Amino acid sequence: MDKRYHHGHLRAALIEIGLRLLAERDGEGLSLREMAREAGVSATSVYRHFPDKAALMRALAMAGLDRLAEAQRQAAEECDEPLESLAATGRAYVRFALANPALFRLIFTSSTRSQAATGEIEARALLDANVRAVLPKDATAEAQAAKALRAWSLVHGLAMLMLDGRVPAEEALIDAVLRG
Amino acid sequence: MDKRYHHGHLRAALIEIGLRLLAERDGEGLSLREMAREAGVSATSVYRHFPDKAALMRALAMAGLDRLAEAQRQAAEECDEPLESLAATGRAYVRFALANPALFRLIFTSSTRSQAATGEIEARALLDANVRAVLPKDATAEAQAAKALRAWSLVHGLAMLMLDGRVPAEEALIDAVLRG
Repeated sequence: MDKRYHHGHLRAALIEIGLRLLAERDGEGLSLREMAREAGVSATSVYRHFPDKAALMRALAMAGLDRLAEAQRQAAEECDEPLESLAATGRAYVRFALANPALFRLIFTSSTRSQAATGEIEARALLDANVRAVLPKDATAEAQAAKALRAWSLVHGLAMLMLDGRVPAEEALIDAVLRG
Repeated sequence: MDKRYHHGHLRAALIEIGLRLLAERDGEGLSLREMAREAGVSATSVYRHFPDKAALMRALAMAGLDRLAEAQRQAAEECDEPLESLAATGRAYVRFALANPALFRLIFTSSTRSQAATGEIEARALLDANVRAVLPKDATAEAQAAKALRAWSLVHGLAMLMLDGRVPAEEALIDAVLRG
């Protein structure tokens, strides 16, 4: 174990470095060797946590999901009113995508999908809770699920269209779509 | 000019071949040499139409957009009622994505974006027209634009979530979201 890091801390440090490099260069050419160099540890130490690049990318995607969920939670907390809270969650989702394009894409890439992502479940549960709060109390579970998927599709689609440059990434447009 | 093709026909034939190869293997490893082999022409003949792979991919994306617009148009034509027509257009959009995953992704990849895509404009105009038809006649241009972007975001997001395996690709879910 490298002396610069306490047990368990190297993994967290590597994820931090990975997220930074991902943001800086859009995920191209991120290598485990370079991560080792940035962390000031040996490549062997890095391989102990991430046996290959795929494992690292999965870990970054999970960390990204946690951050996305956290951004939504914070946005919702600032609101008193259910409808406002739902819109704030949606706005936070799109803003997160625009602020972290490479990470957002990584989160939703099929290859990172196979693992159960707790962050995903959290982000989803948060959206569901916000949707439930704005539905009539007697709405069926099916109606709730449909409404939640609708809300998710809406913000996900807007985020992707903006990231892919199909729609200008403007706050006013985000608001207009969420208000709609 | 290769004798197997009349002037202009080789380009169309190459696009057909490219679309087929894209569908067969998810876009990986599509090469201009292989396209030449499949078309039974020389590599030089292919390069005359597509100087590099990027040019070919752009042409495939344009062709894809035309097909997407056509699928939406056909779906809308089968409906009498504006709301029904809007839902049908949306359903056609998601179905097209699920039936042509590699092509759909290619269409919305940033790198294919730089050119003015007539198919895109058509697909968008069609969606806009369908949205306008369901709005009150005195809706402002701004409200119409917001509603149209909302409709696009909704189907685009659902398509992406289904393509990325985040949501099961089920007809019932598409209907539930569009009914929402």
